[in-house]
Amino acid sequence: MNTGELVELGQQLRVDSVRAAAAAGSGHPTSSMSAADLMAVLLAHHLRYDFARPAHPGNDRFVLSKGHASPLLYAAYKAAGAIDDEELLTFRKLGSRLEGHPTPQRLPWVETATGSLGQGLPVGVGIALAGKRLDRTGYRVWVLCGDSELAEGSVWEAAEAAGFENLDNLVAIVDVNRLGQRGPTRHGHDLDAYARRFQAFGWHTVEVDGHDVDAVDRAYGEALSTRGQPTAILARTLKGKGVGGVEDREGLHGKPLPDADEAIAELGGPRDLRVRVHEPPAARVLHAVESRSAELPRWDKGEKAATRDAYGKALAALGTARDDVVALDGEVGDSTRAEFFAKEHPDRYVECYIAEQQMVATAVGIAARGWVPYASTFAAFLTRAYDFVRMAAVSGSGINLVGSHAGVAIGQDGPSQMGLEDLAMMRAVHGSTVLYPCDANQTARLVAAMADLDGIRYLRTSRGGSEVIYGPDEEFPIGGSKVLRSSAQDRMTLVAAGVTVPEALAAADALGREGIPVRVIDLYSVKPVDRATLRQAAEETGCLLTVEDHREEGGLGDAVLDAFGDGRPVPRLVRLAVRTMPGSASPEEQLRAAGIDAESITAAGRLLAEEAVVA
Amino acid sequence: MNTGELVELGQQLRVDSVRAAAAAGSGHPTSSMSAADLMAVLLAHHLRYDFARPAHPGNDRFVLSKGHASPLLYAAYKAAGAIDDEELLTFRKLGSRLEGHPTPQRLPWVETATGSLGQGLPVGVGIALAGKRLDRTGYRVWVLCGDSELAEGSVWEAAEAAGFENLDNLVAIVDVNRLGQRGPTRHGHDLDAYARRFQAFGWHTVEVDGHDVDAVDRAYGEALSTRGQPTAILARTLKGKGVGGVEDREGLHGKPLPDADEAIAELGGPRDLRVRVHEPPAARVLHAVESRSAELPRWDKGEKAATRDAYGKALAALGTARDDVVALDGEVGDSTRAEFFAKEHPDRYVECYIAEQQMVATAVGIAARGWVPYASTFAAFLTRAYDFVRMAAVSGSGINLVGSHAGVAIGQDGPSQMGLEDLAMMRAVHGSTVLYPCDANQTARLVAAMADLDGIRYLRTSRGGSEVIYGPDEEFPIGGSKVLRSSAQDRMTLVAAGVTVPEALAAADALGREGIPVRVIDLYSVKPVDRATLRQAAEETGCLLTVEDHREEGGLGDAVLDAFGDGRPVPRLVRLAVRTMPGSASPEEQLRAAGIDAESITAAGRLLAEEAVVA
Repeated sequence: MNTGELVELGQQLRVDSVRAAAAAGSGHPTSSMSAADLMAVLLAHHLRYDFARPAHPGNDRFVLSKGHASPLLYAAYKAAGAIDDEELLTFRKLGSRLEGHPTPQRLPWVETATGSLGQGLPVGVGIALAGKRLDRTGYRVWVLCGDSELAEGSVWEAAEAAGFENLDNLVAIVDVNRLGQRGPTRHGHDLDAYARRFQAFGWHTVEVDGHDVDAVDRAYGEALSTRGQPTAILARTLKGKGVGGVEDREGLHGKPLPDADEAIAELGGPRDLRVRVHEPPAARVLHAVESRSAELPRWDKGEKAATRDAYGKALAALGTARDDVVALDGEVGDSTRAEFFAKEHPDRYVECYIAEQQMVATAVGIAARGWVPYASTFAAFLTRAYDFVRMAAVSGSGINLVGSHAGVAIGQDGPSQMGLEDLAMMRAVHGSTVLYPCDANQTARLVAAMADLDGIRYLRTSRGGSEVIYGPDEEFPIGGSKVLRSSAQDRMTLVAAGVTVPEALAAADALGREGIPVRVIDLYSVKPVDRATLRQAAEETGCLLTVEDHREEGGLGDAVLDAFGDGRPVPRLVRLAVRTMPGSASPEEQLRAAGIDAESITAAGRLLAEEAVVA
Repeated sequence: MNTGELVELGQQLRVDSVRAAAAAGSGHPTSSMSAADLMAVLLAHHLRYDFARPAHPGNDRFVLSKGHASPLLYAAYKAAGAIDDEELLTFRKLGSRLEGHPTPQRLPWVETATGSLGQGLPVGVGIALAGKRLDRTGYRVWVLCGDSELAEGSVWEAAEAAGFENLDNLVAIVDVNRLGQRGPTRHGHDLDAYARRFQAFGWHTVEVDGHDVDAVDRAYGEALSTRGQPTAILARTLKGKGVGGVEDREGLHGKPLPDADEAIAELGGPRDLRVRVHEPPAARVLHAVESRSAELPRWDKGEKAATRDAYGKALAALGTARDDVVALDGEVGDSTRAEFFAKEHPDRYVECYIAEQQMVATAVGIAARGWVPYASTFAAFLTRAYDFVRMAAVSGSGINLVGSHAGVAIGQDGPSQMGLEDLAMMRAVHGSTVLYPCDANQTARLVAAMADLDGIRYLRTSRGGSEVIYGPDEEFPIGGSKVLRSSAQDRMTLVAAGVTVPEALAAADALGREGIPVRVIDLYSVKPVDRATLRQAAEETGCLLTVEDHREEGGLGDAVLDAFGDGRPVPRLVRLAVRTMPGSASPEEQLRAAGIDAESITAAGRLLAEEAVVA
């Protein structure tokens, strides 16, 4: 396209943004209008993308980090012929694919859900990293960012990672329209302020008038010819550009234009330009679609092993069987044991340093490219990335997260290092799977099973060693459980998982010696839970005593309730969980202090048995 | 002290770090040894602190952001005479104040709990901001950071905030020992790499040999004489400095030295130097300790108002009555309505821009200085700061967090903007209070009540308006609930909160018309829950049907279980919650699609009543 056509295309994108928001009665047209010229030039001249084949491995990848500017995205889809005008005007309506913030669940051209600011660039870094290190094809990743969102630390985690990894296939386009939701940003139109920051993190930068289509065109060209560094294009723009009544004005964020018809007239009326987007180059998928079954590590019953060790060994074995498995870690691979994978498969290991948000974003990015990521750090530190996990679920992303050093059982390091909220956090994520194994063989099986599940899969591992209680050929279906002690006389059921399983077994033995037979269930699948087994135990024993190395809210105890959510009678439910703030102490002292060791369980069981007699 | 004495003091801190870790059998002596000279010079020459009066308003504030280097901190306490050698050797033992990672819960000289990396500098920024803008006294804030933790985006959120706020009372001392836990950091000993980054964010920087005590002394002096900018001192150090067998070596993170006696000998043996730390200058506390009771806004029953509006108005009124109340917001004050406070009390309003981690860290920092912060953003975006909230609980910090735009009820903006995991996340935090009001008068009362609670207090507000159902003089005790419909014939109880309260009331009316009388409880205090009322309802009606605009895990439904956790019989418990991934739609359509509107509740109630008849 020539200059005049590009200008016209930009105006069309503005008009269609205004029209979409007007039809919806809500949305962010002014945030779309500032970036319309940036989008027009990208679409017409630089993006290589086959809208008919969004899975094409050679396609460039575009991420709308400022997800609220969705009208612009959908206007661009229309200009590219991917959607028609009728669909454009379904924006934000019930059942429409064109949501307020775009998601890949509904639109095949969207790489990742955005709308929580500061996430598009981190995921874009993940995709670019996949391009460089895993796919090894030449696609480029274009991320359109807002200026407000550069206040998010996650953006600088991403900038640091991209600079360090020399991602010259990544271009961040920053729409510096100087206005956030509430008012001016910290740096207004000071492009240099942003450029200094990106440069410090090793990026090439270009400053440009974001409404000068020729200058924007040259800036993209400069980005494409830059080697060894990612490029940030800092574009000076005006929010609401093109309509005098709203241009560069405060107080108009997230609102349709006051008079859409007048605005459309001022923008020169509707147009119907079509863009022939460049075809992607030929490319192929590197990892095999078929994979062998993994030769998982095996432990003998009675051996002592930590589940974190089993995680590392099983993942390394899985990586041998499947060439689509990738491991990521937040600079604690010697603790999580991700290092076992790193040693065997260095090409498929991503060291994320201490940057948990970027680690999860990288996992989401490489999962979007068809890889199967396992990302690990301490369970406690996954809380750092909760917004990213939540948004990954909105994306429908399939990622594996592994949190080690769960619970008070870690001992001396104290509460800052103890994952005590992770089960609650992960259970509340839509469509998640939450697993908490108690021995090495169980861990290995679950690590392998996770790979083929949908959505967010979380595995919780423990620091200390424990006795292997299952044989290496035992199977552990997702949504299942194991009944470890059972008799027709059982007077209650102990429900445990992870480190509390051996404690519950010891308690069951002690109670049995006192003439109180109790059932023990290993509820390794915390979500989904094994409803049938829990219900049967409830009916047969009348009382469930849950024991968990986690806060009492949202963890194992609450999970048990899922089995009784359909209105059927609920048994007596008593929960043992961590109710105090631990300090430093040995693992054994911690379990005792929290009231979740064998003796505490025994005492609680004894009390419940007495009460039942009284009742 | 002269050069020789400073060198000796540094060696003493090393020896004591080695001794403490040896006595504990765990800990991080090598991470302590790298920073020993930095600490020695600070303690002896620059820190102004009265260990006998940690609450002295003129005290400088020291934050050990690399919290795992706690042996160094405790060795410094010993050198300052705050603890004795006997206590030093209780490090990491059960009951000791000297935890693996320091917390203010146990030690009066600790400003904030650390151990989750990348949090000390953000909280330090909050304290420095309090010094500049609220306390307006001349204390300085010194933060000792590790180099590994500079990979955390939160560090750059903090750097951005500090640069923008011109915090020249803040000094970040970065112990660049080049080694993280697992191995080398990204930038090794490249001090320039770090300096460029800090400079880009508006900081003054000084590069120094961290083992040259005179150079370190001059660097601190340069920091103190720098005006208008925070200073970062980038100190080149060696991990394990002073002991040949461990100095600058990989694989020794977080381990006691292999041979403590030999190491101590190599360091020149134990010493018993005492430091006379400089006295703080005279200073006074600015905010009044006593405060008037707030003239809260009032609404008439039947008026329509959004709880977010009530939040903003009530907070503004509270700010008039109490001069210790401070509001913070993540650049969405026009949405959360924190702007109402900002307009009336601009001196006590902190605009945090889109940086939720720093917002919470600032709240923790100013709370540490005696202020009462209320920090607001969309409920969904508080997930971004979960690690900070968790660590605030470890600190025992008293902060108020307010999440607006809760649930699917926001409508068209879609799932990225919907707080659907916030109740689960906040309930799992130790010692938290979780409140979810349904009308304006209730909101106002709860906003005022929050100020005087301990720990993390969370208030969930809604976007849309709803009818005021309570009079302005109604009281809402924390841990209470309101029974809104009740009769002796009730056949079940609807438990609702927030936006589901009016839906539950409408459902109760509809069911009543069908001859199914039901009770309705407004469970505005989600944690703690009103056990007595829930138990009574269970006994009298036999069935609880919970309805929440939240994921089914960890929210209102699970909270109800708390009332029955002591082993007493549980009623039938059925939960209605958000079980799908919403798209864009109107608020009414969203409630319907999620199955939590009046009609869905009515249908569920009808079904349960039939089942009860059958049963």
